[in-house]
Amino acid sequence: MPVTSLPTGRADRPAGRGERAERTGPVVARALQILAAFTPDRRSLTLSEMSRHSGLPVSTVHRLAAELVAWGALERDPSGCYHIGLRLWEIGSLAPRGLGLREAALPFLEDLSQVTRENVQLAVREGTEVVFVERIAGSKAVPVLTRVGGRFALTATGVGLVLLAYAPAEVQEQVLAGPVTRYTERTLTTPHELRAALAGTRARGYAVSDRQVTMDALSVAAPIHDADGDVVAAVSLVVHHGSVTPSALAPLVRTSARAISRALTARP
Amino acid sequence: MPVTSLPTGRADRPAGRGERAERTGPVVARALQILAAFTPDRRSLTLSEMSRHSGLPVSTVHRLAAELVAWGALERDPSGCYHIGLRLWEIGSLAPRGLGLREAALPFLEDLSQVTRENVQLAVREGTEVVFVERIAGSKAVPVLTRVGGRFALTATGVGLVLLAYAPAEVQEQVLAGPVTRYTERTLTTPHELRAALAGTRARGYAVSDRQVTMDALSVAAPIHDADGDVVAAVSLVVHHGSVTPSALAPLVRTSARAISRALTARP
Repeated sequence: MPVTSLPTGRADRPAGRGERAERTGPVVARALQILAAFTPDRRSLTLSEMSRHSGLPVSTVHRLAAELVAWGALERDPSGCYHIGLRLWEIGSLAPRGLGLREAALPFLEDLSQVTRENVQLAVREGTEVVFVERIAGSKAVPVLTRVGGRFALTATGVGLVLLAYAPAEVQEQVLAGPVTRYTERTLTTPHELRAALAGTRARGYAVSDRQVTMDALSVAAPIHDADGDVVAAVSLVVHHGSVTPSALAPLVRTSARAISRALTARP
Repeated sequence: MPVTSLPTGRADRPAGRGERAERTGPVVARALQILAAFTPDRRSLTLSEMSRHSGLPVSTVHRLAAELVAWGALERDPSGCYHIGLRLWEIGSLAPRGLGLREAALPFLEDLSQVTRENVQLAVREGTEVVFVERIAGSKAVPVLTRVGGRFALTATGVGLVLLAYAPAEVQEQVLAGPVTRYTERTLTTPHELRAALAGTRARGYAVSDRQVTMDALSVAAPIHDADGDVVAAVSLVVHHGSVTPSALAPLVRTSARAISRALTARP
């Protein structure tokens, strides 16, 4: 299995899903391609930058950007730079796996944050990556690499291991076939190590990522279930390595995950 | 000036901006029309519901929805219902006036929440309405009508009065020309009352909404400035009416607004 080192900005860059296929696609796909030119590292783009990153001619981008601005999907600032518009944020906030999940989970995440003063994270799986839906930074918390709306490898973080442990077999096989990103000397990268971690996660009902993302962080994560019993999200605490044992954190995280699962199930 | 009573669900419904004009527009506008069929009250739609709410033929919706699903802007659940996809939430989270503003403001909002245990709200203006970007519910807080991603009249809430007080003259005239929604017997609805409230807000540097949204809530709001000195957002505390005077809350809210303004200005 190939093992890659961590490319710059990798953790924050959305996957270029179907990027190549879209380049020749119909007009809606081209408009979406323009939106996908915006990433956490590229939040403000000129017309020619949008053209370069979307792979579309400037004339096409010019015409489609005008339509996107008229609707509010893009906004243009006085300097002529474009950025994602509030209207798109509003529509995006209706995604059940985005703000919908966050709304149901937030009271419990805040309890966990107030009690522990540590980092609390809420994440879902999108394909073979983790997407962070919420993060509350604790006042005494260890620095973490993640941000809300950012992506990360499934294999490194606590939430990622939970989401991978309960993912369909074909997703697991795809991830285990690599490449698997190495973040530290302790990151799991071989199929053997990863299979053992996933089996352990399922057996215990929680995952541990001990210095597998950064050498000073320990994370413990637990699964959140929907009404059908499917794992739809994961919640974690991220603390300084050495400050507390995983088995001491696990009951806290699992209780919180169960409370969030109950809140999700109670919804219409 | 016409005065309307509060229609059901009004506060939560996004404005149908340019809805009529889009019905005959080009293909990108039609795709965006489909996305705009989703609202806080309609988060899950069938194909025929998308057709009805977008005003587009089922055959068109069918074709465009397939493109939107392929990209991840929509997701389809096992029952065949569509909802907004996580990919759109990710892109939407890049809006500087959405998650970008929220990221800069959150530490200060959390401070305000921890110190007061009351509702803390962060909002921006979109046209002639308020859009709530963040809300932290206090543990002893009064119930509020707002939600993240939801809209509200500029004339009723504390944050709305701040955003209207510092809005361009043409926006103020448009709002004052009505209709102005009445929420309680104390809601300001005449141009004379509103002009006085806006002048008072500018003179004091903060706005007060005393039982103007619900009869048990008092809100005090202050403006957040960007690097150019323009008012780009507002922050508020919402407390039980009668529990504390507006002049006691104002220094807290204003200090928080200044700290957020400084954080925004310090960003690249």
